Amino acid sequence: MSFADKYGPWALITGASQGLGAEFARQVAARGLHVVLVARSAPALRERADEIEAVAGVRTRVVSLDLADEGAPAALAAATDDLEIGLLVNNAGISTVGPFLDRDPDFLARQVYVNVRAGVVLARLFAPRMVERGRGGLVFLSSGSALHGTPWSAAYCGTKAYNVMLAEALWYELRPRGVDVLGFLAGATRTPGFQANGPGRSRLVPVMDVQPAVAQALRALGRRPSVAAGRLNRLGYGAMGLMPRAAAVRVLGRSMSTLFGPFPQAGGAVDMSQGKE
Amino acid sequence: MSFADKYGPWALITGASQGLGAEFARQVAARGLHVVLVARSAPALRERADEIEAVAGVRTRVVSLDLADEGAPAALAAATDDLEIGLLVNNAGISTVGPFLDRDPDFLARQVYVNVRAGVVLARLFAPRMVERGRGGLVFLSSGSALHGTPWSAAYCGTKAYNVMLAEALWYELRPRGVDVLGFLAGATRTPGFQANGPGRSRLVPVMDVQPAVAQALRALGRRPSVAAGRLNRLGYGAMGLMPRAAAVRVLGRSMSTLFGPFPQAGGAVDMSQGKE
Repeated sequence: MSFADKYGPWALITGASQGLGAEFARQVAARGLHVVLVARSAPALRERADEIEAVAGVRTRVVSLDLADEGAPAALAAATDDLEIGLLVNNAGISTVGPFLDRDPDFLARQVYVNVRAGVVLARLFAPRMVERGRGGLVFLSSGSALHGTPWSAAYCGTKAYNVMLAEALWYELRPRGVDVLGFLAGATRTPGFQANGPGRSRLVPVMDVQPAVAQALRALGRRPSVAAGRLNRLGYGAMGLMPRAAAVRVLGRSMSTLFGPFPQAGGAVDMSQGKE
Repeated sequence: MSFADKYGPWALITGASQGLGAEFARQVAARGLHVVLVARSAPALRERADEIEAVAGVRTRVVSLDLADEGAPAALAAATDDLEIGLLVNNAGISTVGPFLDRDPDFLARQVYVNVRAGVVLARLFAPRMVERGRGGLVFLSSGSALHGTPWSAAYCGTKAYNVMLAEALWYELRPRGVDVLGFLAGATRTPGFQANGPGRSRLVPVMDVQPAVAQALRALGRRPSVAAGRLNRLGYGAMGLMPRAAAVRVLGRSMSTLFGPFPQAGGAVDMSQGKE
């Protein structure tokens, strides 16, 4: 069965205006799927959609909404009710770097809405029709920060852990019903959101381009419950898995400080926050 | 420094009306801390509080509210503003067992509010005064289901993964400021919530009593970023950490089905849901 037979005719991708989301849209369109692009900015979405129609010759639809809104998942289901969505890519997320205590409580709640609530509710709304048809796919964007506590990314890494564990559990529950589920642990990737955090360089942290990262995710879908992007990242996560958890958290803390810091070890805090979606 | 010097004079425990939360309240009171007990049911809280006052001779305060409400964390901070809270135990959670697709979308959102949003916002509201004083502690209840996707507990295991990763990251960020943070991975524990899910028996899954589980958590606080309750559980999680993730998810799927199922492998779904808080 071809990719389009299994996951078509339409894919829906959240956070599709840039970065990994835009690349998922491009690559599934190149495999013959029509795409629904979702994000806040209508002009940016329209630009991506026009580009995809011109290059891949597929149809597109753009839905502009804020996934932090409680009603957004239901609105998205209503706006695509006439389409057969065979692939849902829960990509939208607000990433942050910096001391936890510098975050506003309202921001922390909003990050939970976009990164956690939107994805789980969308999966619940879109999966039943896939199960009825006996085919389809769900992809949840996670992160290498999801397997251990990642200092200076404390609340973000929690949301990414939610996504990979949900994906792995659903992989098991939905596989016998014909629906493939994948948790995709992106590493450091050259996206606008990553660059906005002003990363430095660390020999320990390889930075990937979006194209090979997304290609790996699409190859892994249907083959395993979760996959990390990049061989070096996989080696790194494997090595951390063998350490006591405190040691792994310390390694991540030092890497984060090298890449995005320096961060305070005690006393005064520096706000390095940048939001993206 | 004694436990009370480090984490006193008051502890605040959510989900304190029964199970692990009630036991946390008892054990910190036995170490000389006054306790604020939080849950939905005022009569159940009052009963726990009276019992604790009688046995431990400490002061108590009960705050009855629903942590699913967006304003609950701020209301809780206001209701305890006159107290010096040195220990916050984020214990409240809605646990569920059963097929993901049998859950109502509104229920999935509510579970995110109680298990994720409430804890992270409470930590953000209560930690700054601990940092000012240079001492204090935060405990986040997690679960053995948090480290791999746990089938038939798909959305729940995600929330517990959020909690342990957040705790580990905050352990690193707040330790230099004098505040200890612990993610506590409870295994199967004889609580009213666990029993309500109607568990069977599995040789693979040891079931602990609440007393030794909570005692282990309090011993680990300040010593490590996270701890799993019970030596057998620790061995089991360690063994799963050495497996390919798909294999670990399969082991968990079979264990869940033995304990709480049987669950369907394909086709018709059986609702085994039970909520607790």
